Amino acid sequence: MNELEFIASVRRRMRSIPSCGEGIGDDCAIMPQDDGMAMVVTCDMLTEGVHFRLDTTTPRLLGHKALAVNLSDVASMGASPVASFMSIARPGTLSDSWCDSFIDGYASLSERFGVPLMGGDTTASEHGLAISVTLIGRARYDHLKRRSAAEDSDVIMVGGTLGDSAAGLRLLQHNSALAHELGLDVADAPVTACPKDARLAPLVEAHLSPMPQTLEGRWLGERCEVHAMTDISDGIAKDLRQITDMSAVGASVELSQVPLSQELTEYCLSEGVDPVRMALCGGEDYKLLFTVDSRKVDRLTSDFRARFGYEPVAIGRITQGEGIEWLRCGVPTDEIFSGYVHE
Amino acid sequence: MNELEFIASVRRRMRSIPSCGEGIGDDCAIMPQDDGMAMVVTCDMLTEGVHFRLDTTTPRLLGHKALAVNLSDVASMGASPVASFMSIARPGTLSDSWCDSFIDGYASLSERFGVPLMGGDTTASEHGLAISVTLIGRARYDHLKRRSAAEDSDVIMVGGTLGDSAAGLRLLQHNSALAHELGLDVADAPVTACPKDARLAPLVEAHLSPMPQTLEGRWLGERCEVHAMTDISDGIAKDLRQITDMSAVGASVELSQVPLSQELTEYCLSEGVDPVRMALCGGEDYKLLFTVDSRKVDRLTSDFRARFGYEPVAIGRITQGEGIEWLRCGVPTDEIFSGYVHE
Repeated sequence: MNELEFIASVRRRMRSIPSCGEGIGDDCAIMPQDDGMAMVVTCDMLTEGVHFRLDTTTPRLLGHKALAVNLSDVASMGASPVASFMSIARPGTLSDSWCDSFIDGYASLSERFGVPLMGGDTTASEHGLAISVTLIGRARYDHLKRRSAAEDSDVIMVGGTLGDSAAGLRLLQHNSALAHELGLDVADAPVTACPKDARLAPLVEAHLSPMPQTLEGRWLGERCEVHAMTDISDGIAKDLRQITDMSAVGASVELSQVPLSQELTEYCLSEGVDPVRMALCGGEDYKLLFTVDSRKVDRLTSDFRARFGYEPVAIGRITQGEGIEWLRCGVPTDEIFSGYVHE
Repeated sequence: MNELEFIASVRRRMRSIPSCGEGIGDDCAIMPQDDGMAMVVTCDMLTEGVHFRLDTTTPRLLGHKALAVNLSDVASMGASPVASFMSIARPGTLSDSWCDSFIDGYASLSERFGVPLMGGDTTASEHGLAISVTLIGRARYDHLKRRSAAEDSDVIMVGGTLGDSAAGLRLLQHNSALAHELGLDVADAPVTACPKDARLAPLVEAHLSPMPQTLEGRWLGERCEVHAMTDISDGIAKDLRQITDMSAVGASVELSQVPLSQELTEYCLSEGVDPVRMALCGGEDYKLLFTVDSRKVDRLTSDFRARFGYEPVAIGRITQGEGIEWLRCGVPTDEIFSGYVHE
C-alpha cells in the first residue's frame, strides 16, 4: 500500500478510540488545553536515499533541514515552536566529526528560534541513516490556522519565491559532485558565499538548507483576516489542492503572478525547462501558503512589510465550485499541474 | 561516538538555549503547564536488525511493541498516556497484509489504554524498516516520579518477574524459526496459546509483546510514599544504577528476592545459565522499578494488591554511600552485574 492507503488504514483501525483534539489531516495535530491555548505537534522522518544522500549534502545542512521541515509545519498552523525531540538511527560508518557537524546544524537553527531540544532517542542502524523529529508548538486556540478555513473570494498568497528548492534538487541529481564543488563542507549555511558558481548556489541552498517562515507564521496566526494556511512542501499544485479540498472551495491562480527568483528563471532558461512548472510542481519550498479576506489584503500586506521588510505575494483567488483553474494572463490554460508525489 | 557520547555532544551544543522544563536525563522530558499539570514526552526508535528482525517477530507484535516501550516510559513517570505519534519508514517489500497487521497490533494496544494516534509520518525506505514513536503523557506536576528522588532507607521494589524477555530473546537468537513454530502468525497476542512448546511461550511473549504497566504507573504516581521510579529497559543492574547515581545514594539488593518466573527458572536450568544474572542484566523487561518510604511499604503493597490483584516485590534497600551492593542470602558477593549496553 502507498502512503495514503497506509494512513487510511490507520484511521480506519483507530477510529474507535476517542481523540483528544484534531489528529491526522493538517500540518500538525491540535491538542486543545484548558487555558484557551492549544498545543500543536508535528513529526517528520528523513531517511537516507529517499530524502537525502550523504554525498550531496553535509551533516550540518542535514541537521538544519531535519528541524527546518518541522518548524515549517508549526509555522503553518500560526503557532510558535516550543520544544523539539530528535531520534536518530546511526550507521557505524558515521565519523565523530560528522555527528558533531550534524548536531551543530540542528543546534544552530534551534538557537535561531530559541527552541530547546528536550529529548529523543539514539540508536544504531544496520541499514541507512534515519532521522525522526517531533516538534511541539503552541498558540492561542482561536489563532490556529487550518487548511480547511479558506472562504470564497479570499486572496491566495505565498510567502516567497517558489521552485528554487526543486531546481536545487535537479542540480544535485544531475551532478552529485556539485555539493562539494559548492564548498558545502566548509560553510555553516552560506552556500551563497561559494565563489565557484554563485548563480546556482541559492537554488542548492534552498533545497539543502531551507529557512522556515517561523516568525511569519506566528505573526500571521494572530491576524484574523488570515483564514487558511499551510506550508508548501509538495508544490502548490498539490498543497493548494489540500486547501480547496478541505475547505470545499475552488481556486483560480494567475501563473504570471507566481513569484520566481532570478536565479530560477536563468537556470530554467539555460536548461530549457519551464520555471513556472517547476515552481508549481516542485516540492520542499517550505514557504507559507495562505488565504486572506480580500477586503483586508492591502492592510495585511503593508503591516507584513513593516514587520518583515518584504511582502507576501498574491497569486490568485478562492472561488466557489471545486478544483483549481490555472490562468495565463487571465486566460484559462488546460495544462495539468500536479504536485510532488511521495513514494 | 557511541550513544552516550552523542547525547553528551548534543547537551553541550544545546546548553545555551533556555529549556522549557526538564529535558534529557529521565524516562520522559517534563514540560510543566500553568494549571499544576505537566506534560511528559518520550520517543523511541526501533530499527530493523538492531531492535527486531522480521523473521523472528510478526507485524502485529512489532506494532504492539513499538507503542509498548513508550507506554512503559510514560508509566515510569507516574503519568497517563494522552496521545501517540508514529512515524514509519517502510521498505517496498512489505505487503499490504503485513502493514494491516502492524497497524492492528499498534491499534489494539492503543485501544487497551484509550490512547489516540494523533499523527506521525509515513515514508519510503530504501534500507530497512524503521519505526519512531513519540508518546505524550500527562500528570499532576507534583505526582511525577523521577529517577533522582530515591532516599536513604527506601525499599526498592519491582513490578513483576524479571529476565523473561532476555530469555525470550535468547531463544529467538538460538532458533530463528521458533517464532513461526510458536504460531506467532496466528495469534493476536496469545503466544501462550501455542500448543507446540508451551513452556517457552511466555518467555518469547515477554520479549516480543511486553505489556507496559500503564495503570500501575499512574496509580503509583499518585502515591507520595513512592519516591523514585523508572522502567526496566536495560536490566536492573543498569536501571537501578541510574536511580542511585541520579539520587546520589547507594543500594543493597538481595539476589534471592529477585522475582523469577517458573518458566525462566526451568529454561535456565535446562540451558545451564544463571537465571538471576539473566534477570539482572537482560534488557527489555518493561517492569516498573521504584523506591518506597520504608515505613509505608506494607500499606502500599496491600493497596496495590487490592487494586491490581498482585503484589510488587521488595528486592532491597536504598543506602547511604554509592554503588550497588549485591547480597546472596545476606552475604555480599563480588560478582559483577552490568546491564544491557546499547550499540
